[in-house]
Amino acid sequence: MAITAQDVKELRDATGAGMMDCKKALGESGGDFEKAVLWLRERGIAKAAKRQDRAASEGAVASYIHMGGKVGVLVEVNCETDFVARGAEFQTFVKDVCLQVCSAAPRWVRREDVTPDELVAEKALYMQQARETGKPEQILEKIAQGKLGKWYSEVCLLEQPSVKPEHDGKTIQDLMIQLSGKCGEKIDVRRFVRFELGEGIEKKQSNLAEEVAAELAKVQG
Amino acid sequence: MAITAQDVKELRDATGAGMMDCKKALGESGGDFEKAVLWLRERGIAKAAKRQDRAASEGAVASYIHMGGKVGVLVEVNCETDFVARGAEFQTFVKDVCLQVCSAAPRWVRREDVTPDELVAEKALYMQQARETGKPEQILEKIAQGKLGKWYSEVCLLEQPSVKPEHDGKTIQDLMIQLSGKCGEKIDVRRFVRFELGEGIEKKQSNLAEEVAAELAKVQG
Repeated sequence: MAITAQDVKELRDATGAGMMDCKKALGESGGDFEKAVLWLRERGIAKAAKRQDRAASEGAVASYIHMGGKVGVLVEVNCETDFVARGAEFQTFVKDVCLQVCSAAPRWVRREDVTPDELVAEKALYMQQARETGKPEQILEKIAQGKLGKWYSEVCLLEQPSVKPEHDGKTIQDLMIQLSGKCGEKIDVRRFVRFELGEGIEKKQSNLAEEVAAELAKVQG
Repeated sequence: MAITAQDVKELRDATGAGMMDCKKALGESGGDFEKAVLWLRERGIAKAAKRQDRAASEGAVASYIHMGGKVGVLVEVNCETDFVARGAEFQTFVKDVCLQVCSAAPRWVRREDVTPDELVAEKALYMQQARETGKPEQILEKIAQGKLGKWYSEVCLLEQPSVKPEHDGKTIQDLMIQLSGKCGEKIDVRRFVRFELGEGIEKKQSNLAEEVAAELAKVQG
């Protein structure tokens, strides 16, 4: 099957990979677009993995303030050069990460960051739940592992599906690898914080009934 | 001595206290402007202290990004009502706090937040230094306490002098009490974070001499 320049361009637009890689991907996949995407994706992951031991100390610290100060986030995303850090694609990714942290309120960047205490407690809960529903003892571990996987995708930023509809459910990690492929550098979401106004502060409840009763007692006393 | 409306207005402009309080302050101080400021300040602190048991869960989360993403800060400042939170004076204070955290890089909000380990290590250092300069054993504790006070004013946000020259060396705590006096609500700098791009990431050093030697060894080997 003949591979046209239009095919190559479409694949490039869809994946962000280089022209030569797209041409090769279509050749290797016999012109099948979906297979070519997969081929590129695997190569992209492999390439990104190779980049993991490189030092990424450039990038950007960015923030997003929601609803005039009700929620705020601060993130640091690293890359290898200031040149990439200034690029539109990197900046867009950084904005997406801010938005994600604000909307989806992850608790950690990656599953390796989950504190051992939290992990033990979470797993114990799943084991207990499975045991109570009468599941046989030998499969409790497997059930708990499955539920932990789901939990990670809720609490770990990189495993969360992007909240932006145009990302079609890709995870933040997918977007990170995609960006890494496009710019040829290691990309790392290093850290984030999320402040929600007044979270954890107990608001004093004024109990009108009690106040009236106290006033009455004084008058009648 | 007669107290003019102009005196009252000047005192009000200087302190932000109410008209009636300013009039009373000048009366109590025999028209002495400096004494009146002190009188108001003491009253202000007393009033602010009274407010400390009130719940402040409104306010704002705000951020400041320096140099296009090299440093970023996120702060939460609380007050009691949304009305005060929207006011220009509160917003200005919040901006000042952001700027302070960015420029002066405090490590904690207040001295009570300093971790015991850090405090013990810091104090031991001062004791050791004093001992080495031959100071008598019985005054080491006092010397160390003095140095700790200085250290707190460097590492605790509320004890730092404001970096803005127009604040004439007032501490962030002073500004906070002043604002509390103006708006009649408890004000609380609750928390902050400061990210500096790449801090703590080791940049890989490429050693040209070693690389050349290695290449030469290959060629000659």
